[in-house]
Amino acid sequence: MKRLIIASTSTVHGSGYLEYLMPELEVFFEKVQEILFIPYARPGGISYDDYTHIAARAFKKINKRIKGLHTYDNKPQAVANAKAIFVGGGNTFVLVDTLYKLDLINVLRQSVIRGALYLGTSAGSNITGVSMKTTNDMPIVQPKSFKTLELIPFNINPHYLDPDPDSTHKGETRATRIKEFHTYNTTPVIGLREGSWLEVIDETILLKGTLTARYFTKGNEAIELAPKHKF
Amino acid sequence: MKRLIIASTSTVHGSGYLEYLMPELEVFFEKVQEILFIPYARPGGISYDDYTHIAARAFKKINKRIKGLHTYDNKPQAVANAKAIFVGGGNTFVLVDTLYKLDLINVLRQSVIRGALYLGTSAGSNITGVSMKTTNDMPIVQPKSFKTLELIPFNINPHYLDPDPDSTHKGETRATRIKEFHTYNTTPVIGLREGSWLEVIDETILLKGTLTARYFTKGNEAIELAPKHKF
Repeated sequence: MKRLIIASTSTVHGSGYLEYLMPELEVFFEKVQEILFIPYARPGGISYDDYTHIAARAFKKINKRIKGLHTYDNKPQAVANAKAIFVGGGNTFVLVDTLYKLDLINVLRQSVIRGALYLGTSAGSNITGVSMKTTNDMPIVQPKSFKTLELIPFNINPHYLDPDPDSTHKGETRATRIKEFHTYNTTPVIGLREGSWLEVIDETILLKGTLTARYFTKGNEAIELAPKHKF
Repeated sequence: MKRLIIASTSTVHGSGYLEYLMPELEVFFEKVQEILFIPYARPGGISYDDYTHIAARAFKKINKRIKGLHTYDNKPQAVANAKAIFVGGGNTFVLVDTLYKLDLINVLRQSVIRGALYLGTSAGSNITGVSMKTTNDMPIVQPKSFKTLELIPFNINPHYLDPDPDSTHKGETRATRIKEFHTYNTTPVIGLREGSWLEVIDETILLKGTLTARYFTKGNEAIELAPKHKF
């Protein structure tokens, strides 16, 4: 049975790392003691050890051990054996490039399909979609492919932001960028605002948190989905 | 002799398409009657014809004819023969993907080195740098390579935005993204604010417009460059 939590962000304004999500994570990870952490998105270029330490400190509050994937000699085996996996945020290009270079894309996908619990935040959520083509990140490295895990039948746009009606800035709004995506692609896109997450139980996908989410499909006006919307 | 105008944006708040730049363009394009327009970045997914029409309408005010590259059967020849070239903004991934697919990257570079006047705005400015790795755009298509024209020895970040001190948003600031770029790359980056442009005359590069620009180099604090700064 496939079980995922796909969160827009690790952190919401005014609260600590993963703090807003901890009550949910305590239930989600109830039956596991240890979580395999994939630190490859490296936010701000920090080291894998430092990033793993941040995750470990947060999960200590619910008595879970965190082990960084970078510490294993046989990484595909570590992913295949894991009962729970957390892929942290950072830069999606760096994350996907590293997963391809270490030949981990397929083993990660298979591990989740076989039942390993999966938590993703931001970049770690982007990669659960069909492709990483709706990331907000800067393309600072060039991955072999933009294809990702396709554990859900759409793409995620994390940290979704509404256009600011008072803005004088001429760069594209998020909604314009996603509309451009649909000029070349047919995959639906969910704009997940900070504080929202998706809970996936097999083929059932539920919008959680208190906010609405913005749902974009090719050729249609975007619509707002209410909390508890079931896909 | 290489001559380029590399602009952050085509349009500044409260003014028409290219309007703020027209006095400069009137001088820059003084000796040419016709400008070859490259519409491949397709902002918002509009058609090449519609985009070319927008450019033609703006340049009519200074009595220049605009011809869209998409209307030529032999596109490499059209680029090689052009005396003046304008690459408009839109999505940098779409632009670079199309230039690679049509095998135009090298011919465009050579044409500018031989003396074709080059105007770029936004995505059209991004591609004058060493790579497109500091674009703000969404990776909606996957180009063969992120390498671009390298007509200048650094990268451009157009539509540069300062961090908003009042923001509650947890997505990365532009400065953080560029810092992450320097974890993996050594190319300097110029954050060009809307309303700024670079004028390139051979190896001399001048910051123009009334705003400062932000200059990022690997391992150093970013610095502000005053208008008229010469690189």
